[in-house]
Amino acid sequence: MSTASNGQGTGAGALLAILRDGRARTRGELAELTGLSRSTVSQRLDGLIAGSWVVAAEDSISSGGRPAAVFAFNERARVVLAADLGATRARLAVLDLGKTVLAERAAELHVDQGPERTLEWVATAFRELLDGAGHDLDQVCGVGVGLPGPVEHASGRPVNPPIMPGWDGFDVPGWLGARLGAPVLADNDVNIMALGEHWAAGPEIDHLIFIKIGTGIGCGIISGGRLHRGAQGAAGDVGHIRVPASEAPCRCGNLGCLEAVAGGASMAAQLRAAGVAANGSRDVVALMRAGDLRATRLVRQAGREVGAVMASIVNFFNPSLIVIGGDVAEAGEQVLAGVRETIYSRSLPLATQHLGIRSSRLGDRAGVVGAAVMVIDHVLAPDAVDQAFGHH
Amino acid sequence: MSTASNGQGTGAGALLAILRDGRARTRGELAELTGLSRSTVSQRLDGLIAGSWVVAAEDSISSGGRPAAVFAFNERARVVLAADLGATRARLAVLDLGKTVLAERAAELHVDQGPERTLEWVATAFRELLDGAGHDLDQVCGVGVGLPGPVEHASGRPVNPPIMPGWDGFDVPGWLGARLGAPVLADNDVNIMALGEHWAAGPEIDHLIFIKIGTGIGCGIISGGRLHRGAQGAAGDVGHIRVPASEAPCRCGNLGCLEAVAGGASMAAQLRAAGVAANGSRDVVALMRAGDLRATRLVRQAGREVGAVMASIVNFFNPSLIVIGGDVAEAGEQVLAGVRETIYSRSLPLATQHLGIRSSRLGDRAGVVGAAVMVIDHVLAPDAVDQAFGHH
Repeated sequence: MSTASNGQGTGAGALLAILRDGRARTRGELAELTGLSRSTVSQRLDGLIAGSWVVAAEDSISSGGRPAAVFAFNERARVVLAADLGATRARLAVLDLGKTVLAERAAELHVDQGPERTLEWVATAFRELLDGAGHDLDQVCGVGVGLPGPVEHASGRPVNPPIMPGWDGFDVPGWLGARLGAPVLADNDVNIMALGEHWAAGPEIDHLIFIKIGTGIGCGIISGGRLHRGAQGAAGDVGHIRVPASEAPCRCGNLGCLEAVAGGASMAAQLRAAGVAANGSRDVVALMRAGDLRATRLVRQAGREVGAVMASIVNFFNPSLIVIGGDVAEAGEQVLAGVRETIYSRSLPLATQHLGIRSSRLGDRAGVVGAAVMVIDHVLAPDAVDQAFGHH
Repeated sequence: MSTASNGQGTGAGALLAILRDGRARTRGELAELTGLSRSTVSQRLDGLIAGSWVVAAEDSISSGGRPAAVFAFNERARVVLAADLGATRARLAVLDLGKTVLAERAAELHVDQGPERTLEWVATAFRELLDGAGHDLDQVCGVGVGLPGPVEHASGRPVNPPIMPGWDGFDVPGWLGARLGAPVLADNDVNIMALGEHWAAGPEIDHLIFIKIGTGIGCGIISGGRLHRGAQGAAGDVGHIRVPASEAPCRCGNLGCLEAVAGGASMAAQLRAAGVAANGSRDVVALMRAGDLRATRLVRQAGREVGAVMASIVNFFNPSLIVIGGDVAEAGEQVLAGVRETIYSRSLPLATQHLGIRSSRLGDRAGVVGAAVMVIDHVLAPDAVDQAFGHH
C-alpha cells in the first residue's frame, strides 16, 4: 500500500511497476494507467531517467503529427549478483534487471567448511565475475543467495541446517552485505528455484509447484504468485512424507519416507546393493542414459512414487503447473512419465484438466535466476522505489 | 497499490486500514503512520466522519494541556448481509463491520430447488432480518454468500456444482444484487468458513487449514493471510485423496477416497450395515454421545484417517493452525484425538513444533462470519475506499 502521497517519490514505483513488462509507453498512457496527473508523471519520469532506470525514445510508428516520446524500463540500469549454493557445488551469476545472465561461474564449493570461508570465496568470485563482465560494485542493486537448508527469510539466517555445520543462525545478509555494499537476501535453494521457474513460466501462472529430485527431494510452492514459505519456513518438505507399503530406512531416522525410496541417494544405494557402481544421483542418471535397465526401472519407479505423493497434493493445492528439476530430473521423460502416470490416474479431473507437468526450463540456472527475481522484486517494489525517490 | 495520488480520496483507504484494528488515534499519529501530511489527514478524516466511517472523540487520558482529539473506526457505520447455504440448511445473518452478529436465522432450505426459488427466499429473509434488527437496505454495504459447491470467485457463478441442479453458471451476484441494491460476493462454503476461522484465530496466524468433516470432507486454505483458491478454484478438495489399504467405494466413482472411509455419510452407512439406525453425520455423532461404542470407534478412526492425509499436507504446507469443523467435528475430542495422534506421529518435527490443532471456535457461525469477512475486506480495501472517496 503506497500511502506517502506527500512524499516526493509517490508514483515512481507505480510507473516502474508498469514499465517493467518491457513495453514502452507515452506520458499520456502512463497517466491513464496510474491515475497520476500528467505533470506528476513527467516529474517522476525525469527522476527515473536521471537514475537511468528509464530511457526515453521517440515512437517512430506514431501516426501523423510529431512523434510522441515513449518511455521504457532500462533493464541495464543495474546488475544483480546471485549465488546458488548446494552442498558441494556453487553457481554464481551476474544478471541484469531483465534476468539475463551476463556472466556466470560454476565451481566445487563445500558449505560444510562453514559460513566465513564459504562466503569469503563467494564474495571474491562475485568481484571477479563483475570485473570480467565490465561492471563494478556501484552498479549492484542487490545480492540473492540460495542455501541448501532451512533459512528464516526475514533475517536471511539459516535455521538448524542439517548439512551446513557452523551456519545455524549465521547472519548471511549482514556478513556479505558488509563486503559487497548492497542489500543481501537469502532463502532456501528450492524456494529460489521455484521463483526462477515461476518467472520462466510467465505471470499467468499463479499457482506452481517446483519439485527438486536430487540426493533428497523437496519442493518450492508459489501461491497466488507469491512464494509460500509456511509457518516455520518449512513448507515444501515433501521428502519425508510417508509412502504406503515401504519400510525403507531414511537418513532422517524414520521408515518409508519418499526420499528413502525415490531420492537419488537411495537409488544409488539400491544399485550398489545390486553390485552396480553408483555414487549418487548423477551416477544413476548416467547409468540410465547408458542403457542400464535397473537404473531405468528405478528412475521410472521413483517418478511414480513422487507422483503418488503429488497426486494428493494436487487435490489439496490445485496448482496450474508442476515443474520437475534436480539431478534426477535430468533423466527427463522417464521421470516425467512416472509422475504424470500417477498424478493423472489419482487426482481429481477438475484439478488436472488444465494441469501442466513438465521438466525445468532453466535447468542448472533455476537457482541463480530465482535469486535474481527475489532481489529485483524486493528492490523494485513500488513502496521501496517511492521511498528511494522520496529521499533523493 | 494505491497510485491515484491526484485523486481526491488518496489516503482515506490507508487511514481506515489503520483504524480498523479498533484503536483510536490522534491526527499526529495517523500522519506518522501513513506518511500523509497533517492537512491531508484532516481532510480525509472529515470525509470519513461525514460518511460515518470514523467517529471523533476526546482523548481523556491525554496528559497536560488540552485533550487531543482522537479518531476511531465506527464498526456500526454499515451492516453486512451473510448467507451460508448448505445442501438442505441455510444460516443467514446481519453483521456489523466488527463481525458482530446483530441478527441471525437458521432454516431448512433445499438448494436443489434451483437458484431463483432459493435466492428469492434468501432475499426475503434478509429483508425480514434487517427489519427486525432495526436496519434498512441503505445501510447494507455488501452481501456475502457461501454455496455448497465449486464457485468461480471472480464472477460468483457456481461451476458444475454436483449437488446444486440448475445452478451451473448462474449469476448469483447479479441476481441477488439487483434485489438488494448492494455488491454481492459468492464463494464455496468451506472457503468462507476458513475465512471466518482465520479471522477468529487472529491476524498473527498466516497459514491456516480449515477441515470440514460433514457428509463429505473438504478444506479451506489460508496462505500468507489470503485464501488460496487454486488454479480452477478447486483447492482443498481433500475428500477424494486416496487412502492406502482401502477399497471402499466412493460416491465419486473411485475406490478408497478419504471421504469414503471418514465422511459422515460413509460412517452412517457402516453403522446401518451393522444394523444400527443412522441416517447421516449428525446421527453418528448423536450415537457416539449416547455411548454407542461402534460409533465412537468409527469417529476415532475417521480422525486417524483424516490425520494421515493431513500429515502429508502438513509437511507440504507447514500451517501454523489446523481447525476442524463440520458436523462430525461436533464429536469433539474423539475426532481431534485421532487427527492429532496421526499428524504428530507422522509429520516432521519442524513442521509440528508450533502447530495448533483444534476444533472450530465459531461452530455453525463460521460460514456467516467468513462471508462477512470476505465482503468487508472487499469493501474496505484501501484502493476501493480511495476510489469511493475520490468520486464523492
